[in-house]
Amino acid sequence: MLKKWKELSSKEILKAHVFRYIQKVRQTPDGKKEGTFDVLHCANWINILAFDEKNQLIMVKQYRHGTDEISLELPAGVIDPNESALDAAKRELQEETGYSSKNWQEIGVLKPNPAFIDNTCSFFLAKDCKKTHETNFDYFEEIETHLYDLDEVKEMIRAKKIGHSLVACGLYFYDNLI
Amino acid sequence: MLKKWKELSSKEILKAHVFRYIQKVRQTPDGKKEGTFDVLHCANWINILAFDEKNQLIMVKQYRHGTDEISLELPAGVIDPNESALDAAKRELQEETGYSSKNWQEIGVLKPNPAFIDNTCSFFLAKDCKKTHETNFDYFEEIETHLYDLDEVKEMIRAKKIGHSLVACGLYFYDNLI
Repeated sequence: MLKKWKELSSKEILKAHVFRYIQKVRQTPDGKKEGTFDVLHCANWINILAFDEKNQLIMVKQYRHGTDEISLELPAGVIDPNESALDAAKRELQEETGYSSKNWQEIGVLKPNPAFIDNTCSFFLAKDCKKTHETNFDYFEEIETHLYDLDEVKEMIRAKKIGHSLVACGLYFYDNLI
Repeated sequence: MLKKWKELSSKEILKAHVFRYIQKVRQTPDGKKEGTFDVLHCANWINILAFDEKNQLIMVKQYRHGTDEISLELPAGVIDPNESALDAAKRELQEETGYSSKNWQEIGVLKPNPAFIDNTCSFFLAKDCKKTHETNFDYFEEIETHLYDLDEVKEMIRAKKIGHSLVACGLYFYDNLI
């Protein structure tokens, strides 16, 4: 029966814009081995599968610094302190695309990277979205909204034109909705 | 038409076990804004959907330092320098589970985290796997192998007993195989 490791010490090495880098000294449950392990503390995220009234998926296109490329993705963002995941999803959809919905449902929760990141990502389905607002970007954001049929999105994943892992996760939850 | 940002400078801040942390100073394409952005350079990864001869999915359970919990996942790992993604997949499946296959197929490629990580993850399908070897763990690895029907895996994702995002990605590619 596998058990969690024992934490002997924890030291924050630095605070970056999007994560805190922490070094954990941890010991195996049997006490025989110990080592230093990298952990990034990140805020929790939300991703949104938002369909408009014609059942097209509302996606966002933006430059991404990690991969240094233009990325087509689900609307997404960070849950602010003292904000619920659902409120973050409603806020991010409106800020990034100007769309809003009265029909929201949480469809799944995942850990983006259990090996060295501590956060979770919640996935929401928003149906019958309408364009109700102007977009409202953060200082460095420049985001285009694009609408696609679900089949087109799947074809773009197959053709490697969409590469963001959380798009595939969102579609997995959508395809496996009860 | 969105364009990539222009890189003005790049500085490696530190090298951790599993990533290099780089600060990029980048400028918007119109030259009007610039800022410092966090990028983690990670080796590329592979994940494996490995089915045995009874069509059960071979999964691995291990302690994960990022989320500080026992995690049930697809066999996975890092592609070594000068190794192909397929060779890494064959090696990791054998090392982590002792299973091997003569029937391999790449079924998808994704970017785990375009916002601040630069790497890719390739997904492989291995059919008709047989237990041919002893496991061969890294120094800190302690891994259990568990076999499940695909429906059981999906039920565990739904019940939040499986939380790793790349499991959902792997199942997305499997469900959408042509």
